[in-house]
Amino acid sequence: MKKVLLSGFEPFGGESINPSLKLIKRLENERWDDVEVHLVQLPVVFGESIKKLKKVIDEVDPDLVIGIGQAGGRTALSIERVAINVDDAVIADNEGNQPIDRPINSKGPAAYFSTLPIKRMMKAAREAGVPAMISNSAGTYVCNHLMYGILDLLAGTDKLGGFIHIPYLPEQVVDRPLQPSMALETMVKGIKAMVMAAVSGDKDDKIAAGALD
Amino acid sequence: MKKVLLSGFEPFGGESINPSLKLIKRLENERWDDVEVHLVQLPVVFGESIKKLKKVIDEVDPDLVIGIGQAGGRTALSIERVAINVDDAVIADNEGNQPIDRPINSKGPAAYFSTLPIKRMMKAAREAGVPAMISNSAGTYVCNHLMYGILDLLAGTDKLGGFIHIPYLPEQVVDRPLQPSMALETMVKGIKAMVMAAVSGDKDDKIAAGALD
Amino acid sequence: MKKVLLSGFEPFGGESINPSLKLIKRLENERWDDVEVHLVQLPVVFGESIKKLKKVIDEVDPDLVIGIGQAGGRTALSIERVAINVDDAVIADNEGNQPIDRPINSKGPAAYFSTLPIKRMMKAAREAGVPAMISNSAGTYVCNHLMYGILDLLAGTDKLGGFIHIPYLPEQVVDRPLQPSMALETMVKGIKAMVMAAVSGDKDDKIAAGALD
Amino acid sequence: MKKVLLSGFEPFGGESINPSLKLIKRLENERWDDVEVHLVQLPVVFGESIKKLKKVIDEVDPDLVIGIGQAGGRTALSIERVAINVDDAVIADNEGNQPIDRPINSKGPAAYFSTLPIKRMMKAAREAGVPAMISNSAGTYVCNHLMYGILDLLAGTDKLGGFIHIPYLPEQVVDRPLQPSMALETMVKGIKAMVMAAVSGDKDDKIAAGALD
Repeated sequence: MKKVLLSGFEPFGGESINPSLKLIKRLENERWDDVEVHLVQLPVVFGESIKKLKKVIDEVDPDLVIGIGQAGGRTALSIERVAINVDDAVIADNEGNQPIDRPINSKGPAAYFSTLPIKRMMKAAREAGVPAMISNSAGTYVCNHLMYGILDLLAGTDKLGGFIHIPYLPEQVVDRPLQPSMALETMVKGIKAMVMAAVSGDKDDKIAAGALD
Repeated sequence: MKKVLLSGFEPFGGESINPSLKLIKRLENERWDDVEVHLVQLPVVFGESIKKLKKVIDEVDPDLVIGIGQAGGRTALSIERVAINVDDAVIADNEGNQPIDRPINSKGPAAYFSTLPIKRMMKAAREAGVPAMISNSAGTYVCNHLMYGILDLLAGTDKLGGFIHIPYLPEQVVDRPLQPSMALETMVKGIKAMVMAAVSGDKDDKIAAGALD
Repeated sequence: MKKVLLSGFEPFGGESINPSLKLIKRLENERWDDVEVHLVQLPVVFGESIKKLKKVIDEVDPDLVIGIGQAGGRTALSIERVAINVDDAVIADNEGNQPIDRPINSKGPAAYFSTLPIKRMMKAAREAGVPAMISNSAGTYVCNHLMYGILDLLAGTDKLGGFIHIPYLPEQVVDRPLQPSMALETMVKGIKAMVMAAVSGDKDDKIAAGALD
Repeated sequence: MKKVLLSGFEPFGGESINPSLKLIKRLENERWDDVEVHLVQLPVVFGESIKKLKKVIDEVDPDLVIGIGQAGGRTALSIERVAINVDDAVIADNEGNQPIDRPINSKGPAAYFSTLPIKRMMKAAREAGVPAMISNSAGTYVCNHLMYGILDLLAGTDKLGGFIHIPYLPEQVVDRPLQPSMALETMVKGIKAMVMAAVSGDKDDKIAAGALD
């Protein structure tokens, strides 16, 4: 049985909630068939986030590592295709760090592609009735930092890694009604479908899901 | 005990689902305390929609009549403030009618304001954790037509009326992931909170919730 | 030769620029054929704005009165279809007034439709290469207040009146690059085309240009 | 005096206009001080686009190569930070090719960062009154393909390269008024400011301009 490690983040940027934290807490109570799921909560801090995750990876020895984070303003579950080797923070992280145009790993490659079967995961979520898409940028903040860190750690191993961005929860935007959101139950359904698709083999489906610009 | 009549619409515009229809079907099974709720399904047809609703109003004799319809592209439950006396259809209705700049009632006023306590309803939905807003336009299609028709029918009576626009459901936009959506359960929670707020008195709360433009 | 009175507004809401003010200043230097154009600058103040405009209407005796105002966040010139009889201010005006759900004219109708040939104006702007649309809500702030005031003043006369909302100028959003904008020259081209269409007869063209919601 | 080569693209995706083509044609007539500007028109074709550009690079021997392309739906000039090593076409190119998840260079790195001083270019455009931003994804279509190709060609040389995405022109969206656009003159002003900033030294300014997600 495959082992999957899913991470969520603490709140940041003035929010009192982080949907990825709510999500992993909710997934603790979820019944999973044919897969062993581990969950970890990470600080929204450059450096510390990946350090803490590395420790858990060493303990758990998972087959797949999937970071999950909030993408305020997005409408769908967004499976990230690529992480780039740069930190460029428009706001400070939860410990006050605000790197600008700093490489994550000065000896690392410019980018890492997700090693998850992202197209099959997208398809699985959609088939479960959940809006999902491929995203070609995880930003330049702690989410991209963590995704790059995961793939840098797993490079050269047969472990797969990647990242999923999720929308705001409805309760986060009650007073900002022009912001899109997604219910926790919808996220749970989509993430479960994606995890099951991810463990079902590492060769991806060939589905056009790029962006024109 | 007050009687509330809620209407939903059939699918239109190439959609196979109308969230307002799903919603009223779902509300049938909902337990309501201290309010008697009646539900009716209407055709997306100029004229016919309000005719059918009038029949049900005559039978049921409700205290409040609230039309509900789909507003594709919106992010929040949108309580309409006003209905205007014009049909201007950019697509044909479900029977092929496509009126352009035609008054709904050639002897009627230019507009009717909702007689529901819209600000209190907005507040109640938000307190229930559901994104909600006041909208200052119900468009110029069948939804606005029905809202105008409801308020035209109820004018001069002590019955209250209005309209609520609701977002797409997630399953409608799985392949259009840039379109916002809202889960049915979130809608149910919001609409229930709004209905309970609406029957709790007709004087509205004074809350700024307008639009700059 | 027909006389047209165009009004622009002072900056408000923390902006240092109002595109409608820049526009009318720019239109002063514009050559107009077969139409006499008068321009006036108005304060963003409930009550005062329409009072000042009324004075100029009395002096100039125009055939058409067209208010112009900023609609931050819009992408196209937006010809307003209707003004509603309510002030609901989410921010204070330039003199600190912030009315909530107050009728503009407690004895006036719920709404006034623009008496301009709005569809022909839209068509003319588009033919001049300028994005233009019909808007079904002018909001509930000073712009709607002025539009309602214009139509209330002109009701029962053969003078035509209405309102056009315009986007931000590029220089307003250099640091807010996700906000749409429109160049002043594009606005000039569009407004000129609209004015010429407006004075060319009062019967409107029949073009579907409504909104579904 | 530095030599700059700017490329524009033919129309694609059902459009009859490509703003980048209009732009380079317009820039031919522009007066440039202290910089020698060369312009080339490229086909929207995987492979062919970079082949044709390579020829011109060999002839002209420019110091900087900047590709320019249309990004429909964007509001600002978008200076691309990074090109990724994948083609994933949701529509066919102008010769019918539609690669899915195919590396651009199977031996190349996962990504190339722009070697232009992108932050200084952004700042220069903004100071000229033109909305400009850093974008962290050039998509997965021909624009990203060309940008990757440029940086792959120039790797190991002292020539600088990168890519700028530009919005629709107003005339492209007259009938799609919810789509943002930018006037050609605004683009010219912004691109000129960017080019002058780019040739003024290769060390970039340190300005936070990243994305949270």
